[in-house]
Amino acid sequence: MNKICLLKTHLPIKLKAMKIALAQINQTIGDFQRNTEKICLYLERARNQDADLIVFPELAVTGYPPKDFLDIPAFIDENLKALNEITSRVSGISAIVGFIDRNKRHHGKLVHNAAAFIQDQKIVSVHHKSLLPTYDVFDECRYFEPAHLISPVKFKDYTLGISICEDIWNDEEFWTRPLYEIDPIENLVSQGANVMINISSSPFAVGKHDRIRVRMLIHDAMKYKVPFVYVNQVGGNDDLVFDGNSVVINAQGKLIAQAATFEEDLMVVDIKNPSVQIQPKIYSDIETVHMALIAGLRDYVIKCGFKKIIIGLSGGIDSAVTAALAVEFLGNTNVIGVLMPSQFSSQGSIDDAVKLSQNLGIAYKIIPIQEVFVIYQKTLETEFKGSPFDIAEENLQARIRGNILMALSNKYGYLVLTTGNKSELAVGYCTLYGDMSGGLALISDVPKTMVYELARYINREKEIIPQNSITKPPSAELKPNQFDQDSLPPYDVLDGILKAYVEDARGIDEIVRMGFDEKVVREIIRKVSRNEYKRRQAAPGIKVTSKAFGSGRRMPITHNFMC
Amino acid sequence: MNKICLLKTHLPIKLKAMKIALAQINQTIGDFQRNTEKICLYLERARNQDADLIVFPELAVTGYPPKDFLDIPAFIDENLKALNEITSRVSGISAIVGFIDRNKRHHGKLVHNAAAFIQDQKIVSVHHKSLLPTYDVFDECRYFEPAHLISPVKFKDYTLGISICEDIWNDEEFWTRPLYEIDPIENLVSQGANVMINISSSPFAVGKHDRIRVRMLIHDAMKYKVPFVYVNQVGGNDDLVFDGNSVVINAQGKLIAQAATFEEDLMVVDIKNPSVQIQPKIYSDIETVHMALIAGLRDYVIKCGFKKIIIGLSGGIDSAVTAALAVEFLGNTNVIGVLMPSQFSSQGSIDDAVKLSQNLGIAYKIIPIQEVFVIYQKTLETEFKGSPFDIAEENLQARIRGNILMALSNKYGYLVLTTGNKSELAVGYCTLYGDMSGGLALISDVPKTMVYELARYINREKEIIPQNSITKPPSAELKPNQFDQDSLPPYDVLDGILKAYVEDARGIDEIVRMGFDEKVVREIIRKVSRNEYKRRQAAPGIKVTSKAFGSGRRMPITHNFMC
Repeated sequence: MNKICLLKTHLPIKLKAMKIALAQINQTIGDFQRNTEKICLYLERARNQDADLIVFPELAVTGYPPKDFLDIPAFIDENLKALNEITSRVSGISAIVGFIDRNKRHHGKLVHNAAAFIQDQKIVSVHHKSLLPTYDVFDECRYFEPAHLISPVKFKDYTLGISICEDIWNDEEFWTRPLYEIDPIENLVSQGANVMINISSSPFAVGKHDRIRVRMLIHDAMKYKVPFVYVNQVGGNDDLVFDGNSVVINAQGKLIAQAATFEEDLMVVDIKNPSVQIQPKIYSDIETVHMALIAGLRDYVIKCGFKKIIIGLSGGIDSAVTAALAVEFLGNTNVIGVLMPSQFSSQGSIDDAVKLSQNLGIAYKIIPIQEVFVIYQKTLETEFKGSPFDIAEENLQARIRGNILMALSNKYGYLVLTTGNKSELAVGYCTLYGDMSGGLALISDVPKTMVYELARYINREKEIIPQNSITKPPSAELKPNQFDQDSLPPYDVLDGILKAYVEDARGIDEIVRMGFDEKVVREIIRKVSRNEYKRRQAAPGIKVTSKAFGSGRRMPITHNFMC
Repeated sequence: MNKICLLKTHLPIKLKAMKIALAQINQTIGDFQRNTEKICLYLERARNQDADLIVFPELAVTGYPPKDFLDIPAFIDENLKALNEITSRVSGISAIVGFIDRNKRHHGKLVHNAAAFIQDQKIVSVHHKSLLPTYDVFDECRYFEPAHLISPVKFKDYTLGISICEDIWNDEEFWTRPLYEIDPIENLVSQGANVMINISSSPFAVGKHDRIRVRMLIHDAMKYKVPFVYVNQVGGNDDLVFDGNSVVINAQGKLIAQAATFEEDLMVVDIKNPSVQIQPKIYSDIETVHMALIAGLRDYVIKCGFKKIIIGLSGGIDSAVTAALAVEFLGNTNVIGVLMPSQFSSQGSIDDAVKLSQNLGIAYKIIPIQEVFVIYQKTLETEFKGSPFDIAEENLQARIRGNILMALSNKYGYLVLTTGNKSELAVGYCTLYGDMSGGLALISDVPKTMVYELARYINREKEIIPQNSITKPPSAELKPNQFDQDSLPPYDVLDGILKAYVEDARGIDEIVRMGFDEKVVREIIRKVSRNEYKRRQAAPGIKVTSKAFGSGRRMPITHNFMC
């Protein structure tokens, strides 16, 4: 998708036209050959559209986040070689390219997160990131030395203020408590920058783009009366998914152009002669979550080289939503459902799973687990003598199912998707090595109440997820007459408490003041705390909320704290 | 264990005696009540020994590392309450206590890693950590605002230079490349500090104490001609284990006193009137690894509230060493061995496992897995039709064993220890949800060659680990005539390559120049890279090397880099 749109600014009238191409690309970490090829391809495309300057995202050369590859000298070398190759291709256009620069000082971290400004096959200037996010999923102080110098750069009639991602996230008027003492944007403006360019790898979280990112950019553009060109990465890497949504805001603070959401894009904007304003497509929260999950799944599958996906179908809503998402990306011939009924499975559940498979048009297998379960019980008879059927037997069933899915995965190279949601993972309502078995926990950052929303969204045009899977009371069916709500509060209550505790870091007193029952709150927080050991061994999931379990939430297993 | 030792320094002769108590304690994260009680108990003990000053480790109030509990306001509040309680108990002695201080500035992170200097039931001064380690297992820039002011403090005739852990790790003469621009020690000395006090939570790695920490302290003491009092935490928290080994170095750079290794200790030293020098007990590397593993296991078990341990015994060396370590800490009545032979298990393996159990005096159960395995194969017959016996069937056996151990764990509350070593985990020679099932992967940072060393050490007085388990060729016994060396290079080669790649971050060329075959090196690194997904779901292990898998090594799963 290409868009050309024109931008009206307060820039002095004598300035010449300047067409900037925003190259919103999806890179693979450490795939220097393909990353370089893609950058060169976009260079060519932008040149064909007469762009004066093309701007690539943060760490476009390496992919983001490269994590501890940054400690491997050969990784830095390859990245510099790739940058040289790209530089040799930059003619007839200028380029801003994110890469890893070596820190040439005697002290500090070995590398900088950097942007190269390239003209006529030469690197004219290099700009280092000043503000290094080190919270949630970000670890940039672990790797990078911050900038020791901030300088704008002249380009044609303009003065570009080049910054990298977090550098724009510290305005002291916009934020109640800025995290950093310096503001690189203020600094650049004070040095005469009149076009701000920010290269980013800013991960998705629901609501972040519309309610924070764009508002902040508009605020900054209005404050400084300069246009902002914001180029974001797109695509997924492990738990993170990047939404793209690159934008241009004019000097009056108007959103003038917005690139695709969750897709690669090249968007060319003339900073001098604006005429058309693009109305960005507005998505609802649940639409963006839906897109994020598919983008995250797609890139996990493609970048890891999987061809087919296998999913255990219980007849419940979680596995139904997971399967529907998988089919949406991979098509129905590459997704396989497996029904693994036991003596505790209701006929309704089997029917729902079959109906789902038929609605999706996927192949499904029915592999009953009773016989295996019986032999396990016989094998453990002596050990379990005199003990009632309990969590041991319940988990065993979930583990048999996990084993069967993994056996099929090992035999045929399928990717197993686990189907647990965030609410279950939070309180440990899931079985380690059982239903938690798999390579990607697709909806593990989706609270149960949002799973219902997703299901209704997936069914917006026709019934894909059987209505019964949505309306029936959720059950693990690991013993007779078992329902989730026997062990857990209603999911709207549970999710309310979890959001307050996990996402918003509120204490018990605060949560109780929000209207939740103190006993329930304490019990839920106790469960969250006590189940950290399970989450430590969970498959990665796609982060869609402001705080996911996984790399963004690092809790000790060994502790004795109850807030 | 208490020691009183006296220290000869270059301090002016007119100075009065000053007895400093080094309180090397083992705290539990967030257990404010018990942590406070322990601090008060040590206060009392030091007062009884006429100490003028007692020094506690870094974050003694909260335990270290509290990780994302630092984002929870209630955690900070409880820590301040605990500090107040402790302050009210400090009379007849002064104290330096590690705690979390709020950052009172408008910018930056919300808290400081701090030391309170307490006299007469009042906090006289607060000292913030200047250098925040953010590499390997450390994430301190994630949480803490660095010190904005460094000041020594007067105490009796002395001027104390109080610093926190990393603050002493940046001497530009000692390190070839200092990580930070400032040196708080130099700063404190320049302000007249004549006794340096450092409170630490410095984790164990083999060789770190003798070969780095003590050498560095000696270097600094000689450089500045001031004594160093270094107080380190002791005990385990998840993957980290702290060795204690608190020391006093005199102004001539002589190691004067050293507290216990891996045990709590109170050591009182008179800075003014030294007379006796303590010769610290010197341990070999393998002795310290052995102590570290037991300390890590002990605290995981105690702090998580487990009573009994269960271990799958294969007859091989890894499970034998794991079981021997467990018995050393928990005694033979609280450790249970489980033999789970299949048709591929040799009689020798069964005999070795039985002999181990007898040598250790532990109860052991024999639970054959053939019947379950047969039923699984029957259950999967249709799916697997026409496919030869392969990794799917191999992994299935490991998973049955994992399920049985977990079933016993779920039924009776036992902690399952996994028995895999670092070499296997590196190259993925292990089964996810199979032999990787368990709460703690005790020896997962111990390379296979070091497992052999440990076995010989454990057998130093008598045969505990059957000789046959040490001498026979290692085998997973998941198919007929299977030996580790069919798929892997000899372990000394493998471990050499892994150390170079994982611990020392060397590239392929460098490793080849060390004398390893290039094809082998490439194959091993490829395996390390491709098995990140397994390690992401591994149980935590006890870090004993300079670079363990787990929280200290953060690699993407999705990537395409081959160094």
